[in-house]
Amino acid sequence: MATANANAKGARKKEVKKETGLGLTYKKNENFGEWYSEVVVNSEMIEYYDISGCYILRPWTMTIWEVLQTFFDAEIKKMNIKNAYFPLFVTESVLQREKDHIEGFAPEVAWVTKSGQSELEVPIAIRPTSETVMYPYFSKWIRGHRDLPLKLNQWCNVVRWEFSHPTPFIRSREFLWQEGHTAFATQAEADQEVLEILELYRKIYEEFLAIPVVKGRKSELEKFAGGYYTTSVEAFIPNTGRGIQGATSHCLGQNFAKMFQINFENDKGVKAMVWQNSWAYSTRTIGVMVMVHGDDKGLVLPPKVASVQVIVIPVPFKDANTDAIFSACSSTVQALREAGFRAEADLRDNYSPGWKYSHWEMKGVPLRIEIGPKDLANNQVRVVRRDNGAKSDIPMGNLVEKVKEILSSIQECLFNAAKQKRDACIKIVNTWDEFIAALNDKKMILAPWCDEEEVEKDVKARTKGELGAAKSLCTPFDQPRLPEGTLCFASGKPAKKWTYWGRSY
Amino acid sequence: MATANANAKGARKKEVKKETGLGLTYKKNENFGEWYSEVVVNSEMIEYYDISGCYILRPWTMTIWEVLQTFFDAEIKKMNIKNAYFPLFVTESVLQREKDHIEGFAPEVAWVTKSGQSELEVPIAIRPTSETVMYPYFSKWIRGHRDLPLKLNQWCNVVRWEFSHPTPFIRSREFLWQEGHTAFATQAEADQEVLEILELYRKIYEEFLAIPVVKGRKSELEKFAGGYYTTSVEAFIPNTGRGIQGATSHCLGQNFAKMFQINFENDKGVKAMVWQNSWAYSTRTIGVMVMVHGDDKGLVLPPKVASVQVIVIPVPFKDANTDAIFSACSSTVQALREAGFRAEADLRDNYSPGWKYSHWEMKGVPLRIEIGPKDLANNQVRVVRRDNGAKSDIPMGNLVEKVKEILSSIQECLFNAAKQKRDACIKIVNTWDEFIAALNDKKMILAPWCDEEEVEKDVKARTKGELGAAKSLCTPFDQPRLPEGTLCFASGKPAKKWTYWGRSY
Repeated sequence: MATANANAKGARKKEVKKETGLGLTYKKNENFGEWYSEVVVNSEMIEYYDISGCYILRPWTMTIWEVLQTFFDAEIKKMNIKNAYFPLFVTESVLQREKDHIEGFAPEVAWVTKSGQSELEVPIAIRPTSETVMYPYFSKWIRGHRDLPLKLNQWCNVVRWEFSHPTPFIRSREFLWQEGHTAFATQAEADQEVLEILELYRKIYEEFLAIPVVKGRKSELEKFAGGYYTTSVEAFIPNTGRGIQGATSHCLGQNFAKMFQINFENDKGVKAMVWQNSWAYSTRTIGVMVMVHGDDKGLVLPPKVASVQVIVIPVPFKDANTDAIFSACSSTVQALREAGFRAEADLRDNYSPGWKYSHWEMKGVPLRIEIGPKDLANNQVRVVRRDNGAKSDIPMGNLVEKVKEILSSIQECLFNAAKQKRDACIKIVNTWDEFIAALNDKKMILAPWCDEEEVEKDVKARTKGELGAAKSLCTPFDQPRLPEGTLCFASGKPAKKWTYWGRSY
Repeated sequence: MATANANAKGARKKEVKKETGLGLTYKKNENFGEWYSEVVVNSEMIEYYDISGCYILRPWTMTIWEVLQTFFDAEIKKMNIKNAYFPLFVTESVLQREKDHIEGFAPEVAWVTKSGQSELEVPIAIRPTSETVMYPYFSKWIRGHRDLPLKLNQWCNVVRWEFSHPTPFIRSREFLWQEGHTAFATQAEADQEVLEILELYRKIYEEFLAIPVVKGRKSELEKFAGGYYTTSVEAFIPNTGRGIQGATSHCLGQNFAKMFQINFENDKGVKAMVWQNSWAYSTRTIGVMVMVHGDDKGLVLPPKVASVQVIVIPVPFKDANTDAIFSACSSTVQALREAGFRAEADLRDNYSPGWKYSHWEMKGVPLRIEIGPKDLANNQVRVVRRDNGAKSDIPMGNLVEKVKEILSSIQECLFNAAKQKRDACIKIVNTWDEFIAALNDKKMILAPWCDEEEVEKDVKARTKGELGAAKSLCTPFDQPRLPEGTLCFASGKPAKKWTYWGRSY
């Protein structure tokens, strides 16, 4: 189970395609799963690894991760949150201190039992998340109200040894993330931070990755194991009709504080328990980006996160002055770089311009600049947008200004297109029959709900099947009006709120 | 062995000291080991963890790590080295592909054998380093000379389950590092990169951490398991008389290329094997810094890496205008921050100025600014250097300029003082008797050597004992003249080179 697996076959097929340079075998609308695996490999974001569920993140991925990291890290530092690094390992006894929490993670925990040839005296867990790793030390460090708030974050890897459908970025046994862990004297402070962080997650999706998300609160059944309440940003993949949890910001309440005895003397000299939050986003963000924007030519990168925003390609003709064309390409790149763009020229002499177009389209570069003899003569360049294929000529004199405009237009158009597609999938239903019809129609369903845990369990049970059960995605903060007397779509009891439902990743 | 341990007792003792705020129990010159553990805990760099050999890196540590990371990451990007991320896990069969390599690491490898309640079909190793994780994919990605050079780096955690004397930063079971892995068409390119990277490591030690290092080559016995040759920067800890390997830049030659079949078609259409390097520095750097610069008041941070370069402390007297003093502190901090310094004010009202002095001295802040009524009246501030305790008054008008001068002087003085101490430990010997005398005298010994592996083994055997055997540290690139007829200090055979020897970490 741990070694070579079904992925390898797909990977080998892709390898052949990659070498022929002919693009993708699968179409996004026809074989979404195969298309996705092919795009992440052929764009050189991912390499399949010989342990199932583990993937190699190649430089084309890591640059995107670093852009998001640079943004988020600076933002949380402004909030006076400090980075720390806690160990990868946690003992069984500490891991099990919070009952609901460990129940949520137990089946996925990887255990180290041996070092070299020796058996360890007790098995040691690899962190699936770090609440139990950190909180015994919160208890030690927090004594008085002056030690609060305590606000830490770490950038690290975590391991969840899942067995269901590993998918690059989306569901992998090891992934990279940041996890923030904070403790406050009051619930009000904790509540406020939950939302501040959630807003940063919205920005990551909407402003960087150009993906619309819904901010909301998870149901009791779907909230973080051991937490008080969970907020999330929820994205949606129209092709599969599945919601996907984009990132979560949890208020843990005082539950962990109780289990780990995180107490402090408040400003009145009275002993009190802290209020805690934890929040995380992971490399999953990048998978959602691939799924939402990619097309049948490959990856489509939003300019704000693209490693290469502009690729400059010489288009020499026989008899034309090749040197002059190549040199115009280099000076174009230089001008763009000086203006702060991430630009590169592809001056390789063993590939045709056409091959290069396909190659960089596969890799999702937002803007292509072509320079041929005619362009040279007219002191202009030809630009081609990756998102919609639109071509235009721009005079060299306006290069920087125009490129800036176009990249910003691409960023905006990607978001708008994604939002239009997502919105077209939203379906408001009031009855169970409408709900089932919408579910079969791959919709993101907004329905009035009684907010009872048993009812959600019942919805899951009644929709069980090959595609997976439906569940609540979130109760959006932005609530439509709920007319008096509205009944729950599932139970027929009085509805308390509008909640999104659907199948999900 | 894995759970609570001897460290806990020390940690509890330190905890009490920390709360009284009275400084350190141990003196650097008297109980170096205890002093070190106490400094890293009391300065809030490290918290001991409940798994032996694992440590929590607190924000005071992580800021230093981030400064080094920002420098190094930018430098390697200039060299066109790209970041990637490979999995934490490696299968047994791949790990064992290179015989010498696995022999070097086998006793320290941690094995995952269980997930949830299930036994894995085959145990999976946690990377002790990533040569075997990466190179099967190098083999896949490299086909022709145009795929070369391939230059990757990753920032990650690695695990080496050592059982001998865990020490925070210096020898821990999990640590953070960068590992670079590159492949070239020719040895000349590989050789050149080895030295370019080594020069960056020298800068990390000498220009950032203010620690003198010796650049040189490791002996056959001490080189990287499976590699061709190893270069390193070697530091020295005068208090213990031990050398410490600061960072290593290895040329792997074609050995891994052979084992992992990393071949390419060169520009003449002939099949050839790549030349490879790997290189790494780790959080050990920070431990060396603590050991070299720390004193009996605590940590001493070089300004270039300090989280807080200047701490501003109000010194109110009764009857004095406290508000005006506090406000002068805040505006001083603001002026310094605007000028690009990392400055903070300690305006807490529940600690005395004296307590604050000790606290920030313990944390190693390079420069303290005190502002009292007299300073306010004279429109000046009192500055106190952490490195030598020197005090001076500087007019507010010259604040930024003077602080800049002083910080730069502190950085320089720390290096010079460390170099003077290190140089005083260097002892040139020619005979075995001199060697043993110098070893007992805790020297870093420079001796003429025949460069034979059996002789080094013999030196180790003959110096075995409670303090550990002596070994070669490195053969410095900067070689003194070796007069003709010079004999090896250990074997009496003709000497080939000058080599550093000593006990080491």
